[in-house]
Amino acid sequence: MTTASNTPPASPVSTDVLIIGAGPVGLFAAFEAGVIGLSSLIVDNIERVGGQCIELYPDKPIYDIPAIPSCTARELVDRLLEQCRPFAPPLHLGHRVETVERLDSGRWLARTDKGLTFDAAAILIAAGNGSFVPQRLQLDEAAALEDHHVHYSVRNLDDFAGKKVVVAGGGDSALDWSLALRTVAGRVTLVHRRNGFSATDSSVANMRRAVEAGEMDFAVGTIASLNAPGGQLESIDIRQAEGTAQLATDHLLVLFGLVADLGPIAQWGIEVQGGRITVDTSNYESSRPGIFAAGDIAGYPNKQKLILSGFHEASLALRKAYSYAFPDKKRVHIHSSYDAKLAERVAASHA
Amino acid sequence: MTTASNTPPASPVSTDVLIIGAGPVGLFAAFEAGVIGLSSLIVDNIERVGGQCIELYPDKPIYDIPAIPSCTARELVDRLLEQCRPFAPPLHLGHRVETVERLDSGRWLARTDKGLTFDAAAILIAAGNGSFVPQRLQLDEAAALEDHHVHYSVRNLDDFAGKKVVVAGGGDSALDWSLALRTVAGRVTLVHRRNGFSATDSSVANMRRAVEAGEMDFAVGTIASLNAPGGQLESIDIRQAEGTAQLATDHLLVLFGLVADLGPIAQWGIEVQGGRITVDTSNYESSRPGIFAAGDIAGYPNKQKLILSGFHEASLALRKAYSYAFPDKKRVHIHSSYDAKLAERVAASHA
Ligand SMILES: Cc1cc2nc3c(=O)[nH]c(=O)nc-3n(C[C@H](O)[C@H](O)[C@H](O)COP(=O)(O)OP(=O)(O)OC[C@H]3O[C@@H](n4cnc5c(N)ncnc54)[C@H](O)[C@@H]3O)c2cc1C
Ligand SMILES: Cc1cc2nc3c(=O)[nH]c(=O)nc-3n(C[C@H](O)[C@H](O)[C@H](O)COP(=O)(O)OP(=O)(O)OC[C@H]3O[C@@H](n4cnc5c(N)ncnc54)[C@H](O)[C@@H]3O)c2cc1C
Repeated sequence: MTTASNTPPASPVSTDVLIIGAGPVGLFAAFEAGVIGLSSLIVDNIERVGGQCIELYPDKPIYDIPAIPSCTARELVDRLLEQCRPFAPPLHLGHRVETVERLDSGRWLARTDKGLTFDAAAILIAAGNGSFVPQRLQLDEAAALEDHHVHYSVRNLDDFAGKKVVVAGGGDSALDWSLALRTVAGRVTLVHRRNGFSATDSSVANMRRAVEAGEMDFAVGTIASLNAPGGQLESIDIRQAEGTAQLATDHLLVLFGLVADLGPIAQWGIEVQGGRITVDTSNYESSRPGIFAAGDIAGYPNKQKLILSGFHEASLALRKAYSYAFPDKKRVHIHSSYDAKLAERVAASHA
Repeated sequence: MTTASNTPPASPVSTDVLIIGAGPVGLFAAFEAGVIGLSSLIVDNIERVGGQCIELYPDKPIYDIPAIPSCTARELVDRLLEQCRPFAPPLHLGHRVETVERLDSGRWLARTDKGLTFDAAAILIAAGNGSFVPQRLQLDEAAALEDHHVHYSVRNLDDFAGKKVVVAGGGDSALDWSLALRTVAGRVTLVHRRNGFSATDSSVANMRRAVEAGEMDFAVGTIASLNAPGGQLESIDIRQAEGTAQLATDHLLVLFGLVADLGPIAQWGIEVQGGRITVDTSNYESSRPGIFAAGDIAGYPNKQKLILSGFHEASLALRKAYSYAFPDKKRVHIHSSYDAKLAERVAASHA
């Protein structure tokens, strides 16, 4: 796997198949593309591969991947990465594909939020439930303060040096960032709706010790409003059992976890029903010829959100995609076990 | 896995889903049936599980099973057996399902060539290219002599004691049976169309040593006709480069390997096209509601004979099959990773 540079080159990156989504289905698709002779690259909105498996249940065992009696979600992703290594599909992480348009040549031009562009014969959307984005604070005044006073991730610890920081959330990242910031910030207050956490025991214990030692504060409550006269955050109102408390605040770091958001896909002119892309089950093509969907994002009668279904869907989609990349060639099917070139590549990738 | 007794019980064996075929798809189907709460049993014509993987390429590596970068066909089958172990589906090997009929109750009654009967809410046909049967000798007079003088397998070595036996074929089983029979039979002659074999080096070396030592004979040629006046085999004519030779023979053992034969399936009143059972790709149901097909035997536009496709097809078929087994229950989907009962079963099967 090569992690591609994120600096947008002047001209589009060209490939046979652009795979949107680096979840289990996108990763297997990159392998299958290679097997049938297509180049591919993968783009994902988040900074790591694995989709839901890594974001939502990395350490859970999965039992229903065929011929793998048990493996954790993380192990599944590691195995898929190893499997596609012979084809070294470039990975563009931290890029959300925003627009997709058809060129006069019949090929597709896709553009990411960071200005990277791709030129592809076909597109395979393996976007799960959409791209993972931080769950936003549901307050009208929050949007205008985003990036300056309201944050959903930490880019640079120094931005918080000497400041009054409120961290909202009850998971591992809220606890761990509270602990990390307490040595840098003027004062850190962790705010969570209840005195109980969905985080590892050791993080909870460390946080409680830090509170006892007076190194940080913890308040039970929910954020009711942000007070920012003239666009400068000054304080936060916290609704508590006993009433509302006001907390002087320079920066609010909201760590409520990630949610999936179909986002831009709905604007690509393809038929979408109930958040799924409508596909034809003989080739998993969408309503726009040349754009395919596989995995959780694909919608058809009786669709099951099973990883094994995504593998089949991607395999069939890529076989049709081949006809867009090589309109004049007839694809010849060779069983993987009789494919000498593939055997060589697999061997070389382990050398 | 429990290998069920082959003595036909008086009444039909009852199950939710009867799986026909113990190839990779049938084996995974037994696991998936268990996961969603259906009982199942597997019937296969041959004496071992694994279908094409075991009959045709056990030691070849397969590269395109998702998340398994490389495994031999035999390893794949072992993994699938391990995966379905928690549900211990009964295996009825050496039984070919011959007839399938619908009962007034809406359930199905299936009968094997050996008289075993099954009573099932649904049937999943995972029969590959059909049942594996020995490739027959293409001579009109051979059929009448079958079982008495012309054999396609060895039931009992003693049947050949003191007799003049001709073994035809050039693979491992022809060589190994020639060697085994030479100590029992009056005389063994191996006949093969060329002086070269598709067998392991050690079997070939052993055979050549036995011929040199005068313990058996080897003749290059093809069987041209069987001479059996009054239904008693007396001799065989062998066409050779130099003309035809006659060989006094009591028993002919033909070991030309296995071929797949759709066989009885074509008589079950389901739509078949080009040797495939026509299915609806939203539930892999055949033209007869309650009968499903998955794997190589399933036919639909753009069907690919990939093992991974069979896994998906079987999974979807079984979810629909559930509605026949439990018409009044709504199946609730639980991800395998959140299925506590499944986790317990898997753990118990390894204890
Ligand atoms: C708790 C839990 C347990 C589960 N257990 C099982 C199980 O046991 N067995 C099973 O088969 N399934 C299970 N599943 C379901 C399984 O995880 C999903 O079916 C699978 O992850 C779908 O894979 P995917 O590749 O289609 O999508 P995802 O895994 O959702 O990955 C999609 C990726 O696409 C990216 N993306 C989306 N839009 C864009 C865009 N515009 N630009 C760039 N990137 C984008 C996203 O950021 C994401 O990383 C479980 C799910 C959960 C939540
Ligand atoms: C040389 C070779 C290499 C291959 N390499 C690959 C590869 O790399 N990747 C890949 O995905 N695929 C590969 N394949 C294809 C793969 O093996 C098949 O797709 C797979 O075996 C199909 O599985 P199945 O369970 O549907 O059927 P099968 O494996 O054919 O098993 C069907 C079983 O059903 C039984 N049966 C049939 N009718 C009856 C009946 N009436 N009663 C009882 N039993 C019955 C048969 O005896 C048989 O055992 C290869 C195939 C070959 C020949």
